[in-house]
Amino acid sequence: MTSKNHRTEKRKSEHIDIVLNQKVTGKGVTTGFEKYRFRHCALPEIDFSEINLRTSFLGKPLQAPFLISSMTGGTDRAREINKNLATVAEERGWAMGLGSVRAAIEQPSAAYTFQLRKYAPTIPILANLGAVQLNYGYGVSECRQAIDLTEADGLILHLNSLQEVFQPEGDTRFKNLFSRIEDLCSTIEVPVGVKEVGWGIHGELARRLFESGVSFVDVAGAGGTSWSQVEKHRSKAKDPIRFQAAEAFTEWGIPTSECIVEAREKIDGEHTLIASGGMHDGVQGAKAIALGADLVGYARSLLPAAAHPTPEPLRSILERIELECRIAMFGIGAQNLTHLQGTNSIQRVN
Amino acid sequence: MTSKNHRTEKRKSEHIDIVLNQKVTGKGVTTGFEKYRFRHCALPEIDFSEINLRTSFLGKPLQAPFLISSMTGGTDRAREINKNLATVAEERGWAMGLGSVRAAIEQPSAAYTFQLRKYAPTIPILANLGAVQLNYGYGVSECRQAIDLTEADGLILHLNSLQEVFQPEGDTRFKNLFSRIEDLCSTIEVPVGVKEVGWGIHGELARRLFESGVSFVDVAGAGGTSWSQVEKHRSKAKDPIRFQAAEAFTEWGIPTSECIVEAREKIDGEHTLIASGGMHDGVQGAKAIALGADLVGYARSLLPAAAHPTPEPLRSILERIELECRIAMFGIGAQNLTHLQGTNSIQRVN
Amino acid sequence: MTSKNHRTEKRKSEHIDIVLNQKVTGKGVTTGFEKYRFRHCALPEIDFSEINLRTSFLGKPLQAPFLISSMTGGTDRAREINKNLATVAEERGWAMGLGSVRAAIEQPSAAYTFQLRKYAPTIPILANLGAVQLNYGYGVSECRQAIDLTEADGLILHLNSLQEVFQPEGDTRFKNLFSRIEDLCSTIEVPVGVKEVGWGIHGELARRLFESGVSFVDVAGAGGTSWSQVEKHRSKAKDPIRFQAAEAFTEWGIPTSECIVEAREKIDGEHTLIASGGMHDGVQGAKAIALGADLVGYARSLLPAAAHPTPEPLRSILERIELECRIAMFGIGAQNLTHLQGTNSIQRVN
Amino acid sequence: MTSKNHRTEKRKSEHIDIVLNQKVTGKGVTTGFEKYRFRHCALPEIDFSEINLRTSFLGKPLQAPFLISSMTGGTDRAREINKNLATVAEERGWAMGLGSVRAAIEQPSAAYTFQLRKYAPTIPILANLGAVQLNYGYGVSECRQAIDLTEADGLILHLNSLQEVFQPEGDTRFKNLFSRIEDLCSTIEVPVGVKEVGWGIHGELARRLFESGVSFVDVAGAGGTSWSQVEKHRSKAKDPIRFQAAEAFTEWGIPTSECIVEAREKIDGEHTLIASGGMHDGVQGAKAIALGADLVGYARSLLPAAAHPTPEPLRSILERIELECRIAMFGIGAQNLTHLQGTNSIQRVN
Ligand SMILES: Cc1cc2nc3c(=O)[nH]c(=O)nc-3n(C[C@H](O)[C@H](O)[C@H](O)COP(=O)(O)O)c2cc1C
Ligand SMILES: Cc1cc2nc3c(=O)[nH]c(=O)nc-3n(C[C@H](O)[C@H](O)[C@H](O)COP(=O)(O)O)c2cc1C
Ligand SMILES: Cc1cc2nc3c(=O)[nH]c(=O)nc-3n(C[C@H](O)[C@H](O)[C@H](O)COP(=O)(O)O)c2cc1C
Ligand SMILES: Cc1cc2nc3c(=O)[nH]c(=O)nc-3n(C[C@H](O)[C@H](O)[C@H](O)COP(=O)(O)O)c2cc1C
Repeated sequence: MTSKNHRTEKRKSEHIDIVLNQKVTGKGVTTGFEKYRFRHCALPEIDFSEINLRTSFLGKPLQAPFLISSMTGGTDRAREINKNLATVAEERGWAMGLGSVRAAIEQPSAAYTFQLRKYAPTIPILANLGAVQLNYGYGVSECRQAIDLTEADGLILHLNSLQEVFQPEGDTRFKNLFSRIEDLCSTIEVPVGVKEVGWGIHGELARRLFESGVSFVDVAGAGGTSWSQVEKHRSKAKDPIRFQAAEAFTEWGIPTSECIVEAREKIDGEHTLIASGGMHDGVQGAKAIALGADLVGYARSLLPAAAHPTPEPLRSILERIELECRIAMFGIGAQNLTHLQGTNSIQRVN
Repeated sequence: MTSKNHRTEKRKSEHIDIVLNQKVTGKGVTTGFEKYRFRHCALPEIDFSEINLRTSFLGKPLQAPFLISSMTGGTDRAREINKNLATVAEERGWAMGLGSVRAAIEQPSAAYTFQLRKYAPTIPILANLGAVQLNYGYGVSECRQAIDLTEADGLILHLNSLQEVFQPEGDTRFKNLFSRIEDLCSTIEVPVGVKEVGWGIHGELARRLFESGVSFVDVAGAGGTSWSQVEKHRSKAKDPIRFQAAEAFTEWGIPTSECIVEAREKIDGEHTLIASGGMHDGVQGAKAIALGADLVGYARSLLPAAAHPTPEPLRSILERIELECRIAMFGIGAQNLTHLQGTNSIQRVN
Repeated sequence: MTSKNHRTEKRKSEHIDIVLNQKVTGKGVTTGFEKYRFRHCALPEIDFSEINLRTSFLGKPLQAPFLISSMTGGTDRAREINKNLATVAEERGWAMGLGSVRAAIEQPSAAYTFQLRKYAPTIPILANLGAVQLNYGYGVSECRQAIDLTEADGLILHLNSLQEVFQPEGDTRFKNLFSRIEDLCSTIEVPVGVKEVGWGIHGELARRLFESGVSFVDVAGAGGTSWSQVEKHRSKAKDPIRFQAAEAFTEWGIPTSECIVEAREKIDGEHTLIASGGMHDGVQGAKAIALGADLVGYARSLLPAAAHPTPEPLRSILERIELECRIAMFGIGAQNLTHLQGTNSIQRVN
Repeated sequence: MTSKNHRTEKRKSEHIDIVLNQKVTGKGVTTGFEKYRFRHCALPEIDFSEINLRTSFLGKPLQAPFLISSMTGGTDRAREINKNLATVAEERGWAMGLGSVRAAIEQPSAAYTFQLRKYAPTIPILANLGAVQLNYGYGVSECRQAIDLTEADGLILHLNSLQEVFQPEGDTRFKNLFSRIEDLCSTIEVPVGVKEVGWGIHGELARRLFESGVSFVDVAGAGGTSWSQVEKHRSKAKDPIRFQAAEAFTEWGIPTSECIVEAREKIDGEHTLIASGGMHDGVQGAKAIALGADLVGYARSLLPAAAHPTPEPLRSILERIELECRIAMFGIGAQNLTHLQGTNSIQRVN
């Protein structure tokens, strides 16, 4: 194993530990969903049992408009987590994003940690790579490799500029990245999506990304996991100045709800928009959809249960999120996602 | 006793216990009355002793514009509570709503727990049934039965969609309920009203309900008892996912004050509008009337006193609420309810 | 001593004790001055020593635009407090309001407690009576008596509707009081002013009062002493319902700053407007003047020092208030009260 | 040593002690930067390593748009602090303001405490005098003396009206100061700037100052060190009334961010505007520049580290502030200060 690979692996494993054990949410910034409230409809005129959450993503059906956001891979422990995530996603009919596949490209022996098709034969699986790697030697062939080894339905490129800055070993050359993404989209055979990692994608950028050929955008906004907070814990001893600088960025980022509202104003209705960042229940999820999202992604709020030896705790969480979404829909009388997305029963609290 | 009846009874008795002993109010939502303030008039130009609270409801006079909201029935203990409520309502000239009479329809031997006419010969008494029962076999004959066995002046149908969802045994088929309510109103001989149970009825729905023939609407808005919180305590052990889902609904509902303001904008002046949900004093009551309500209903804030063996504690509360309302009227120089309802001495605090 | 006199005396003495020892400020309501901020002028272009606070009231010069608000009288202890207040008011050139003189009219032997001219030969002294007494047998002759026995320069009638309600023995006939005040103003030889006692006089009422002949209005708004809170302590044991009702009125009243802004919009510039209610320092005082007041009154914030055996502590407070007002004026470059009242260097904080 | 000199020295030394050991920030007022948020740009399209902070001030290059604000001098201890500040400012390429040089003019033997050119040969150094001294005998010759003995590139006059009031020994004659500043600017050979000390310079005054010939304005607004709080600690025993009066001024002053926004609206783009008052990190600094400042000054937040025997701790703070500013620029994709100042990626949080 090269020392670079070793570093990547160690970093990934530290991330899991920190996210599980430390306070990693920002301060002074929230998702903003608490500023929106559904208007209760006391006479919903539907039967609860007829509410359905079905939708589709990348040509495959989903039982619920939900996504397990990209998290992990590369180590034995990550593989256990991924197995739980894939098993339960398949059971419940959610889509699933993998953690960055770079670990497996740099170190083929790590590939098995991302090979989840056997646990999730039917759902959309998304491979994941840092967009910035396109400035560090990665091209269409590495991206194809990421797809092939994971049997994925599409590829997510993550934008994580500030995370890279807060990593002592970070890749921070973001110049000309836009045209490289554009090139990739026009070359590769599978759909390519772009996501942030918790600071959000603003409306104008979402619009430009769709114009340049991406198939979906996941805003991954602020209010949940804050990567300056996560990386802070890693740099503490090694780089005290960076550690302290991270503190000044706890409030950084665009709240998830603002990203969604903005993006939906700027982009066409048929473009697929994913809301994530700070999501932990199905009422928030329903709000995100009512504000314009097509799918809703959950990352950190699933991790503790996913790290459990058996899939039961994770399954309960997914069931709970779905139930909460259904109940919210019942509360406003929306029978399916089309009704939910078109509802005027959401309002800003004044 | 059938097991279904037994279940209904047990549920009702659990409700009382939970409401008396647990925190059952929502979080992140209030009645909104705290956002309104009366403009004090230092020179009221009336005599305090001449202020009168008299009004009428369903053709009967009331000494005060107040209602004891539907709560209980079906068990011995409920009967004691009901006796206290009826006795004191009669003394003070308030209207009284009964808890759901379904228990007595399913189990005739429980009827005595709702038979309060002997304690309250002159005041309006309202029978109560879940509106959704009209989708589960109830029709005009069951409704007549509810009226007959309680010697009531009218019938309240409660809309409680989310409560039914949070009950493992819940009746959640709300489809076509609107037209069934319409049918009932055009058939039955007594006035029919519709209420929520703590999530509110919005203005547009209030308007539609009056159009379809209901005689009064009780908004029963958010800010007081939250039924997701109540049912949560019941599902805790039996259904942990439902228990946790309830948490996401603590902020659900339309604040009582918003319901009133909205409804009054949408409906004609002569339609009877009842404000309830989170009411605990007479200043709030006066605010509700100033904002457009005709009557004000109190439920949970009366329960602890009503559960006392003797009526004295309850009587004190009713007297206090009336006194507070009178003092508020004196503070703005309103001599009677017509003045109070037409006042411009209420304003939103900025 | 008649038992009625005795009751009046006892009440007054209880007031002092409660105000000195209990929490008597409202909750959920403030003076509103904290919502205004002076815009600092870094280059004031005046000399601090040349700032002067001089003004006049009822034809007599004042060294500062300040008033000791009506508080006490009738008992030996009140007399000691009054002596301190009068001595220091004279020293500092403030105006002084007496507590209600009714005690001395009903019981001539109590007159000495209000006879402060010997301690305050030059300043304006204001006698005080409850306006509502004009509905209980008081007329121009009792008012003249109040002036004569106190050698006062004018008479303040206080409007205290809610205080009367919260007193078991209260005088609550406020009907036709307006025309009686009008009559008194047109008959009596001295200037008559009207004040509230802590719930405020709104702008329209201030306008009407000036139209009907009053010489000055003291808004005595909300945010300081709350009389529902004071009377609550007195009714606790005797009248538990009234005691509890008082709780619902802790937020009652119009904030002092709102009263001033409103009244100044409605009335002519030459009418004398006094700001009081919750004033405790000279920056607030300067804000009140900048918003339109001519004089500023302080009651409860002076009482603990006034109850001291010697005048020193009280003198320090008056000096402090003046110094704070001067510094605030220096901070915005206002050399005298005309500049302060005309300043545009005050703004609402957003 | 004259007793006046001795007093000046003692005061300066007390200031350091109080600022290091007491709570000296205001209450109820903040810089306002927390109300602004950068809009994250997930695809910055620049390389982090190419971001540069270079600018110039008074004709000299700066490596970063930062200034150590005027603090100290006059005593041995102050000299140690100044040596650290100068050494590190030179290393990092920041500008440096000296504390008031009056101590050295009144007492030539104190001059060495301000003679920092040997530690800082290339950066802009600013001498400092109280503007009000121009009303107390100081003229162009004393100002030249201040420049000469410090080998400074320019002179800062500080406006500290309220500080002078809170000092028992204060110089509070501010009349005609404006024209004296004007005269000085037109006579002296070096650039003259004007600053406040923590209560802010409003937009209109900034405009007038530039019109009358000053070369730069440092708003030194509210939200950081509050001089009423500092002086309070000194007057406590000696002058209890002044001590208590200081309390009423804890909320005084114009928030730094408001000063900047206002001034930038009123003045031409080429005038040099410095933001200071309450700055403690580089994200705030970047916000100040985005809102219109050219340079950003830090005072109290550097003092504890500057008081350390060696320069390391201070150096770390300057590096951290620069890093934070760079990261913020990366976060919005601004490569240099021109881009940062022209950005529309800053917005008020609602
Ligand atoms: C432990 C962990 C590892 C992550 N790794 C990746 C990753 O490899 N690739 C990626 O695009 N995002 C990654 N993310 C970011 C998430 O996909 C998500 O955008 C972010 O955490 C915000 O969502 P949350 O608030 O629900 O956690 C990771 C998040 C966590 C918590
Ligand atoms: C113990 C309890 C039992 C209730 N039972 C009924 C009922 O049978 N029928 C009904 O329409 N509402 C019922 N309610 C709802 C109340 O009538 C009321 O709408 C709701 O509690 C909100 O008012 P509150 O905040 O004053 O409690 C019940 C409330 C309580 C507290
Ligand atoms: C102990 C006490 C006695 C008072 N007595 C009178 C009175 O006799 N007449 C009157 O007009 N106001 C009376 N007041 C009311 C004050 O004049 C003033 O309007 C009110 O207290 C609000 O001002 P504050 O917040 O500064 O206390 C009294 C106030 C206090 C604290
Ligand atoms: C210990 C100390 C001494 C100061 N001395 C001076 C001074 O001599 N001249 C001056 O113009 N400002 C002086 N200041 C004010 C600062 O330059 C600055 O304007 C003010 O402290 C607000 O900035 P801050 O919040 O970053 O401290 C001093 C500040 C401190 C903390």
